[in-house]
Amino acid sequence: MEKTMKYFSNNPWKIEEMRFCKKYLGKYEAIFSLGNGYMGLRSATEEKYLGEKRNTFVAGTFNKATTEEITELPNVPDLIQMTIRIDDVELDLTQGETSHYSRCLNFKSGELTRKFVWTYEDLKLEFEFRRFVSFERLHVLGQQIKIKNLGKKRNLKIISGIDGQVTNSGSQHFTEGEKSYTNNKFIQMTSTTTESKIFFVLSTVHHFSAKQVDSRIEMSRRRIYNRYCFDLAKNEEVVIEKLSSIYTSIDKELESKTKDDVQKLALAELNEIETAGFEKLLKESTKAWEEKVWQILPVTIESNDKKDQLALNFAKYHLHIMTPAHDERMNIGAKGLSGEGYKGHTFWDTEIFLLPYFTFTHPEIAKSLVSYRYWGLEGAHKKALDNGFVGAQYPWEAAWPTSGETTPIWGEANIVTGESTKIWSGFIELHITSDVAYGIKQYLDVTGDQKFAETKGYEVILDTAKFWASRLEWNSRENRYEITDVIGPDEYKEHIDNNAFTNYTAHWNISLALRICANLKKNYLDVFKELDKKMNLAEIYPQWQEKVRKIYLPKANEAQIIPQDDTYLSKKSIDLVKYKQSSQVGTIFHDYTIEQISEMQVSKQADLLLLLFLFEDHFSKEEKLKNWDYYEPKTLHDSSLSLSTHAILAADLGKKELSYSLFERAIDIDMGENMKSSDSGIHAASLGGIWEMTVLGYGGIRVINEGLRIDPHLPEAWTKLSFGIKWRGIDLNIEVSKTKLAVRPAEKVPHLTFTSFGKEYTLDHNILIEL
Amino acid sequence: MEKTMKYFSNNPWKIEEMRFCKKYLGKYEAIFSLGNGYMGLRSATEEKYLGEKRNTFVAGTFNKATTEEITELPNVPDLIQMTIRIDDVELDLTQGETSHYSRCLNFKSGELTRKFVWTYEDLKLEFEFRRFVSFERLHVLGQQIKIKNLGKKRNLKIISGIDGQVTNSGSQHFTEGEKSYTNNKFIQMTSTTTESKIFFVLSTVHHFSAKQVDSRIEMSRRRIYNRYCFDLAKNEEVVIEKLSSIYTSIDKELESKTKDDVQKLALAELNEIETAGFEKLLKESTKAWEEKVWQILPVTIESNDKKDQLALNFAKYHLHIMTPAHDERMNIGAKGLSGEGYKGHTFWDTEIFLLPYFTFTHPEIAKSLVSYRYWGLEGAHKKALDNGFVGAQYPWEAAWPTSGETTPIWGEANIVTGESTKIWSGFIELHITSDVAYGIKQYLDVTGDQKFAETKGYEVILDTAKFWASRLEWNSRENRYEITDVIGPDEYKEHIDNNAFTNYTAHWNISLALRICANLKKNYLDVFKELDKKMNLAEIYPQWQEKVRKIYLPKANEAQIIPQDDTYLSKKSIDLVKYKQSSQVGTIFHDYTIEQISEMQVSKQADLLLLLFLFEDHFSKEEKLKNWDYYEPKTLHDSSLSLSTHAILAADLGKKELSYSLFERAIDIDMGENMKSSDSGIHAASLGGIWEMTVLGYGGIRVINEGLRIDPHLPEAWTKLSFGIKWRGIDLNIEVSKTKLAVRPAEKVPHLTFTSFGKEYTLDHNILIEL
Repeated sequence: MEKTMKYFSNNPWKIEEMRFCKKYLGKYEAIFSLGNGYMGLRSATEEKYLGEKRNTFVAGTFNKATTEEITELPNVPDLIQMTIRIDDVELDLTQGETSHYSRCLNFKSGELTRKFVWTYEDLKLEFEFRRFVSFERLHVLGQQIKIKNLGKKRNLKIISGIDGQVTNSGSQHFTEGEKSYTNNKFIQMTSTTTESKIFFVLSTVHHFSAKQVDSRIEMSRRRIYNRYCFDLAKNEEVVIEKLSSIYTSIDKELESKTKDDVQKLALAELNEIETAGFEKLLKESTKAWEEKVWQILPVTIESNDKKDQLALNFAKYHLHIMTPAHDERMNIGAKGLSGEGYKGHTFWDTEIFLLPYFTFTHPEIAKSLVSYRYWGLEGAHKKALDNGFVGAQYPWEAAWPTSGETTPIWGEANIVTGESTKIWSGFIELHITSDVAYGIKQYLDVTGDQKFAETKGYEVILDTAKFWASRLEWNSRENRYEITDVIGPDEYKEHIDNNAFTNYTAHWNISLALRICANLKKNYLDVFKELDKKMNLAEIYPQWQEKVRKIYLPKANEAQIIPQDDTYLSKKSIDLVKYKQSSQVGTIFHDYTIEQISEMQVSKQADLLLLLFLFEDHFSKEEKLKNWDYYEPKTLHDSSLSLSTHAILAADLGKKELSYSLFERAIDIDMGENMKSSDSGIHAASLGGIWEMTVLGYGGIRVINEGLRIDPHLPEAWTKLSFGIKWRGIDLNIEVSKTKLAVRPAEKVPHLTFTSFGKEYTLDHNILIEL
Repeated sequence: MEKTMKYFSNNPWKIEEMRFCKKYLGKYEAIFSLGNGYMGLRSATEEKYLGEKRNTFVAGTFNKATTEEITELPNVPDLIQMTIRIDDVELDLTQGETSHYSRCLNFKSGELTRKFVWTYEDLKLEFEFRRFVSFERLHVLGQQIKIKNLGKKRNLKIISGIDGQVTNSGSQHFTEGEKSYTNNKFIQMTSTTTESKIFFVLSTVHHFSAKQVDSRIEMSRRRIYNRYCFDLAKNEEVVIEKLSSIYTSIDKELESKTKDDVQKLALAELNEIETAGFEKLLKESTKAWEEKVWQILPVTIESNDKKDQLALNFAKYHLHIMTPAHDERMNIGAKGLSGEGYKGHTFWDTEIFLLPYFTFTHPEIAKSLVSYRYWGLEGAHKKALDNGFVGAQYPWEAAWPTSGETTPIWGEANIVTGESTKIWSGFIELHITSDVAYGIKQYLDVTGDQKFAETKGYEVILDTAKFWASRLEWNSRENRYEITDVIGPDEYKEHIDNNAFTNYTAHWNISLALRICANLKKNYLDVFKELDKKMNLAEIYPQWQEKVRKIYLPKANEAQIIPQDDTYLSKKSIDLVKYKQSSQVGTIFHDYTIEQISEMQVSKQADLLLLLFLFEDHFSKEEKLKNWDYYEPKTLHDSSLSLSTHAILAADLGKKELSYSLFERAIDIDMGENMKSSDSGIHAASLGGIWEMTVLGYGGIRVINEGLRIDPHLPEAWTKLSFGIKWRGIDLNIEVSKTKLAVRPAEKVPHLTFTSFGKEYTLDHNILIEL
């Protein structure tokens, strides 16, 4: 496999595709995705190729294509595709010769560029394609195409407009829609989702630098496009701009608007952006990236490998394009907005892997993400009731917050029986509920946002505790509460009893609820009364007190190994080297079924070790080391949620070299040379993991007992790490070298402290610590 | 444009594509279509190409994808596609070198073959693909693929199964469906249409000649497929068979069956056909073609141009694959079952252009087609009522017979205003109703099927007359009944008054109803009473008598020109040479809008001249000649329904050379070198027209005054024409040379007669007539 990917070793802001390769369309479509949290645009090329995935998603616009399908983000009619014909030869890089090729994503500006010279028989032309999704105007995207004729005079045809024939792998979410062509230039299509009845207004306008352009509007099924036709002399260049916008009826700012209003408003804006033009709009967007992202608490890595800084920038770029910061009714999908994978649904990935970045650096966005869970209480109540429990049982997969559980029930075929496999996560992967509470608690600890706590956060934590209390099963023989028949984070073990992660976090969730109740009764009686009305706390509180004491928390055995669940340690072990070394994930399924894997000591991903990371103060270092040695070799990292946790824990445990090698593997999940890994979209959680490894792992940031702890451990390859976090509203600049730790608060605040390697410091001055 | 098409000059049974050309995928997909009237399979190749249309349709299985869309034949999950990888290089003829290429449709056996040698870098393999849709077993289709490795040992992967991601240009008609894999070989998918709730059971089995084949079943969204993997040594050949079947819940023979029953029955049959194997099944199908089509009343043309015989065979082949002879609830679509064009709907094409072939040669099939109109009475009543009339107003476009009108209301954009054009045909193209009556009357005249007349046929004719009587408008100034605001056959004239074709055929329809009533009252009183009960004939009859006398029938002016409508003759004339000579249709729209064209003396297609052909005994030869000279130059033949009528009329009028040149243009509509004309499907009516030109035109067969007339006129290029028709149940072999006409009845029947050039003959012996 020849390499097609290039990093700019002196530029941590760019990744380049060096050569067009039809086999790897999916990789670049996903990792070069554009977006602004409102919309996500997979980077399919202007011209079509077989095997491409041409996706545009608008956050939150979920729809069920048919009653038996799962709700998902619909693939919006395409605004990007263009057919380019030169004397009736269609531009197609699988034909003829392509030279001077470069496709490049610039994270800093959010601009995607593609350049090449294409020769086909006696045609020779130079192409440059530029594209961005505005980070300033959430509804706007722009394209610019330059074509220079290096041969003799040619006739060019550009066929471009709006194409509603796209589907989600064959499922159509939209009505045929209305098409219109106004002012002899504005193309508009208004389509409505079939079940959720959300209308989308898509508008586009083209501008040509050529003087003599014939155009002809054409409509066909689900398509409206212009056929532009002009001549291009030798050495002449044409510049084409296509500026487009997307609005939907669930846009918050359009609440009281009719379809007609929105269509008009979109055209008015189109007129405005046409006047502004591509360059001005891009500049404006680049400025927004600078102000909203890159200037905020920047991270600088001085490493032997420049790719580390690039990876961090890559991660932050994607974290921002995938996150619907503009609307609390929306959250982050497991593939962001970059592919059809996981249908745009939100998982525990948000709380455990993505939220920390926002909580520590963009608390307003974090607040929006945790508010989503508050709005999700309705769905969580529904799920609890459906399953015979009370309180808030959060959906394993969440879409529109009030919809509740949206995990599909059937998955791919079992290779032995050929029958569809039941997906159990929606039923028994319970830990999502304590993960949600964990995310909120971390948000509260880091931000100190008492208003959010009182109006939303406490309620979620109490309501999740209520669920756990109703879910506990009394084992009278053992005189304890157990949680049986679950899936823990390690999804290679289904229907297990007393998964340590689940039991510990349930215990923690109820304990936290008790502490909150006590505090509310004491300090915020009004809030307590309000919540008591909703949840009958007065009655539940003593039950919690009773139950929490008797929850079974699996304890370390004589070898200091905490059992992942009741039977894990007694299962057979097999040689996993082959699978651990594979560059693909899930290769164990080539040899075993999930039922067989369930009976082995093999983990898909961090499970017990994740518990040790998230609740690090609950376990001794000795215990952590023993369990690391036991579980790490058994963990295949077949989930993209795994490597970052191991990398952090390894750093905590002083295993610097191992940690850094895990870091390097983790940053390659999307950005690396595994050319098929991102086909169905980037791995959102792993991108959050890149920031976590850097700041929580090597930077050593942790919340311990509601306080800030900074225990940095730089890997050997790094000489310096500088980053920022916001602690209780105060920006802290933190600089770590091999020998020193500097903590510089933007404001000096005597009431705030942190600990570092066991010592407490007060943030009333810049602090320099020798390591 | 280099030619890619080849006719076998010594073989009138084959058309060949000589070279793969991605630009012309649509042409060959359509003209090489396979089918058996139950299903139609567009001939997309096994491997995918951008721009392909991969269509499988099952007759009658209409569905509305969304409430605002028009009902159409859904594109059935694909059974044909296969991905073929050789050492991870995917077979793709746009890459590498292809030699020894030939793709060939054999009409006689209904077999499609494709052969080539493909070289890519150091790979070299020989491929042969064969495919058929069984003409014996309506539910079965078969594929055979031979791959011979001409280079060194390679690893092959074949990915093949059932793909439900196909859509109708983006509209999805099916639920995700159930997938199953049983007996370690049978792949099955059961999908249901979203609105009409018809379930489809698709099943397939693969067989490999290679000894060591690894296979792995995989399911993904809307897809289930096997991944086969094996080695192929140098010079080794592998033979792969894929045998498949399609059943649906509207199959008549499955009426009382549950989904589970059908799934089991399909698997049982799959088992059976797997045992039989490709060769045996193909042989069986070829035999059915021979017995059901080719041996029945064959047509032999001795022409200077062998293509004429080929065209006739091509037409008959397509007429049979497109016609759902197995079920009277179904009819022929305007594109047969070969493309998404016209959505599988039935137009007047059936009665005027397609039915005559079946009426004269396969009366059982004709009976099924006219019965469809009887079952359509419910829909026709509904349309009449919706429009404020009574009786049976037939839908311009018909789908399921009881559904009534299914013409879409909006079409493509007007190039000046950019707005969608309203399609008026469903509202005001009234002549379909008399066309239906015409088809039935011809069926009755040719077959003498009195039982059909009494149980179904008369009722349709009377009910259509009832519609016409209610539709007539009294013009008190002129003291006559008129029919204003219509579209006639010439669709370039919308909203015209007193279209001659419409008025004459309405008049004829009511007159016929009166004659039938009189006959019934006299000879079949029971039948009359039955129909009287349904239609209140006793009351209507005198109204018909009154009205029919006063219907305005536009008469020839002083120049003997019958006006096509009230204003046609006063409209301006423009120079049409440019459009008449264009190889494309509709080029006048590049210069004018439909509104502008409406104001010119230009006709899309035969209109007044069609009237002269269908009712030839109503007009003198002199009148015909004058009107020919007037209208022919004004007719652009922008409809595929036009040329055949002009060719026949020219032959009637003794314009032999002109007629033959029109014949040659007409046979090329699909079969010719216009490589884009068939993209959305073959032109069913024009294929019926090929038979009509041959047998009605040159053979001179006509029904005049309910009797048979044979006035042959061979074109210069033809030395002999031999054909058969069935007249009142008797097979007649008719042989025409330049000098002789021989008519040989299979049985000698003294009560049957025919006329030829004004003389009457009795069919009690073989008759030889000197010309």
